[in-house]
Amino acid sequence: MLRWNEESSQVQAAALMRPAVSASAKVEAICKTILANVKEQGDKALLSMAKEFDNRSNPRLCVPLDEINASEQALSAELKYAIDTAYANVKRFHEAQLPKDIKLSTQPGVVCELKYQAIEAVGIYVPGGSAPLPSSVIMQGVLAQLSGAKTVVLATPVQGDKAINPAILYAAKLCGITTLIESGGAGAIAAMAYGTESVPKVNKIFGPGNSFVTMAKQLVAQTIPGMAIDMPAGPSEVLVIADERANPEFIAADLLSQAEHGADSQVILLCNSESIIEQTQQALTRQLANLSRKETAEQALANSSLILVDSIAQAFDVSAQYGPEHLILQLGDATPYLDKVKNAGSVFVGDYTPESAGDYASGTNHVLPTYGYSATYSSLNLLDFFRTYTVQTITKSGLTQLSKAILPLADAEGLDAHANAVSIRLEAIKNEQ
Amino acid sequence: MLRWNEESSQVQAAALMRPAVSASAKVEAICKTILANVKEQGDKALLSMAKEFDNRSNPRLCVPLDEINASEQALSAELKYAIDTAYANVKRFHEAQLPKDIKLSTQPGVVCELKYQAIEAVGIYVPGGSAPLPSSVIMQGVLAQLSGAKTVVLATPVQGDKAINPAILYAAKLCGITTLIESGGAGAIAAMAYGTESVPKVNKIFGPGNSFVTMAKQLVAQTIPGMAIDMPAGPSEVLVIADERANPEFIAADLLSQAEHGADSQVILLCNSESIIEQTQQALTRQLANLSRKETAEQALANSSLILVDSIAQAFDVSAQYGPEHLILQLGDATPYLDKVKNAGSVFVGDYTPESAGDYASGTNHVLPTYGYSATYSSLNLLDFFRTYTVQTITKSGLTQLSKAILPLADAEGLDAHANAVSIRLEAIKNEQ
Repeated sequence: MLRWNEESSQVQAAALMRPAVSASAKVEAICKTILANVKEQGDKALLSMAKEFDNRSNPRLCVPLDEINASEQALSAELKYAIDTAYANVKRFHEAQLPKDIKLSTQPGVVCELKYQAIEAVGIYVPGGSAPLPSSVIMQGVLAQLSGAKTVVLATPVQGDKAINPAILYAAKLCGITTLIESGGAGAIAAMAYGTESVPKVNKIFGPGNSFVTMAKQLVAQTIPGMAIDMPAGPSEVLVIADERANPEFIAADLLSQAEHGADSQVILLCNSESIIEQTQQALTRQLANLSRKETAEQALANSSLILVDSIAQAFDVSAQYGPEHLILQLGDATPYLDKVKNAGSVFVGDYTPESAGDYASGTNHVLPTYGYSATYSSLNLLDFFRTYTVQTITKSGLTQLSKAILPLADAEGLDAHANAVSIRLEAIKNEQ
Repeated sequence: MLRWNEESSQVQAAALMRPAVSASAKVEAICKTILANVKEQGDKALLSMAKEFDNRSNPRLCVPLDEINASEQALSAELKYAIDTAYANVKRFHEAQLPKDIKLSTQPGVVCELKYQAIEAVGIYVPGGSAPLPSSVIMQGVLAQLSGAKTVVLATPVQGDKAINPAILYAAKLCGITTLIESGGAGAIAAMAYGTESVPKVNKIFGPGNSFVTMAKQLVAQTIPGMAIDMPAGPSEVLVIADERANPEFIAADLLSQAEHGADSQVILLCNSESIIEQTQQALTRQLANLSRKETAEQALANSSLILVDSIAQAFDVSAQYGPEHLILQLGDATPYLDKVKNAGSVFVGDYTPESAGDYASGTNHVLPTYGYSATYSSLNLLDFFRTYTVQTITKSGLTQLSKAILPLADAEGLDAHANAVSIRLEAIKNEQ
């Protein structure tokens, strides 16, 4: 336990320091080779990587449509209900974000429009690893579906000779995804960025992944003009603000649900009660004992801080300074503080709003800025699947009036041809009269 | 003149090829040194660069407030009117983009919100060069003002021992900017990214610039966690689609108003009439003769293509393939085609809507994606000065119902602690009853 007010600003800063993550030059070099291979050899490179990295003896790339359609038969009724509900809630929340074009007249005869265009082709990456991640399909796939993107590619690795997990397929089916590629890592990112015989080229790539995936996304965004990626990825983190009446078991459970994500996860508790912090420490030890990912969670807890603050108001200041991906407010009444929330990715209000609700099913998106990016970056939202452009339509009399603004500015900026494009038209208007 | 249908796809692609731009390793190395100097030495480094690069004998950094306030006295009535009008139109169009928070219940007892937060501190860069660019101040400053950002820093270089241009100061004054820094290039970007004694540190940096500015922006975005920049910058470009009744003088004037921007600018004409193309060629020669930036425009024209298409519909296909920053439609009736517009940054409809209207005063933003980025990137808009975050609030009964979605998904993903954070609460609810 760290007593915030008794520490120097150096110790305070160290308590909020994130574990260092820097991509090694080795990761970059490997990714560059993979990118070049996929660009040159297409499907062949992907298949050879599936053998090498995913231990598949007879890899394939595309999942046949009837396999996607038949997926729900392999699911328990409970899991199907869960996926259906998560899908419906995420859809409801993001549907409300559908953008509306704007059209207005800025002065007589001058009409300006802001228009939204869905990004035409998007790629979604879903990591493999120890368990399938249907929630990751939903959190990205629903948005692609709502945007009306013409092409949606989902890529995910399959390990060994297992079949692709039916929960992944069913979530993809609900999202209307028909192009599902069994491929992972930097190779899958390269395939979506360059296109191959089986994989359509996309304009923007979404999705989390390991250091190879992250590096490959950065490389394609830097080197292919127009290629975009969702946001910088980093280790996951939670900050809990709890008051003197909070339930230490709930606090410990929330801290652990973040800690089990990865050894580089970070969890921070800010509390105004020494007794609650001590009880939380005990609850952490107790709950940790039963977790299947106990070792991961233990490593993450080593990066983490339980901090005693003077007041809940001070906790919000410290939280704004840290900028947490997830911010949980276990407060009797959070209302007076909600306006003080700053630099958080997603906020969970009250004793009965655990982070796992947002991770899976409340409706908010679980793709969030982390590692201090939440001061500037947004939680994933529907507009990330759109771009805006503008349109202006000006009448003759509109241009005549507007020229009084354009010409002196073009003159001040020394741009003759800019002025000429207007005055040549004014002359034509005069000659007509 | 290139006849589109008679050419191979290779020649077609070559006609739409953009001039290569790649930052040299030398630019990168210089920028890294400048960044390190400013980070270490702050104001001292900026002042020494102002002497070295801007030939200032007695440089200063901050423009005093009374100088900003007195700026309009030095402007002609015409230029003041122009700046006032451009400011008002840009403000009107972007004010309509002010975002509204979203709040809804996805299922009983589960309330989700999407909230907008202004990015707290933003930096605006305005290039110097041969002429002052008050329009660049307006196109960025109005948005910062409307967002309500707490800190807005504007940096612009001043050459030699001249005073900073009053048109820049007056535009800044209208936008409510009080922190105005006389500093340019990579040094100014570093100052806003790291902060110095005189320059507040910002979270996001906007604005165009030369290769040093662009490189410095990329470097700070890559190396400082959470630091954001507006969009990748590239050479400016226009594509004009004109029909058989279009005015060749207007076409030539629009092509030249783009060409005068820089030798690497690109201009493309797509027209369904050979005669109009020939008349445009003649008009280009005639108009070019009188331009003060004749040499620049001539060089740009060398990168450019006048293309004969079969039909206006085909022109829209070619335009979508190119993805122009500016798209001008000199068509008798553009209406049937407006839905076919794709991958354009800003569209100018009709014979009396020249690009210079949007560059200065119609109300739309002149900061646009270029170099093929318009398939994925947006024209600068008010949301670029905001970030979104989400909030969820769940009741006991809400969580009880939602747990049927959370628990099977946590189980499928092998995340025990995620499930535990819910079940520990369900138990508490049960014990209360």
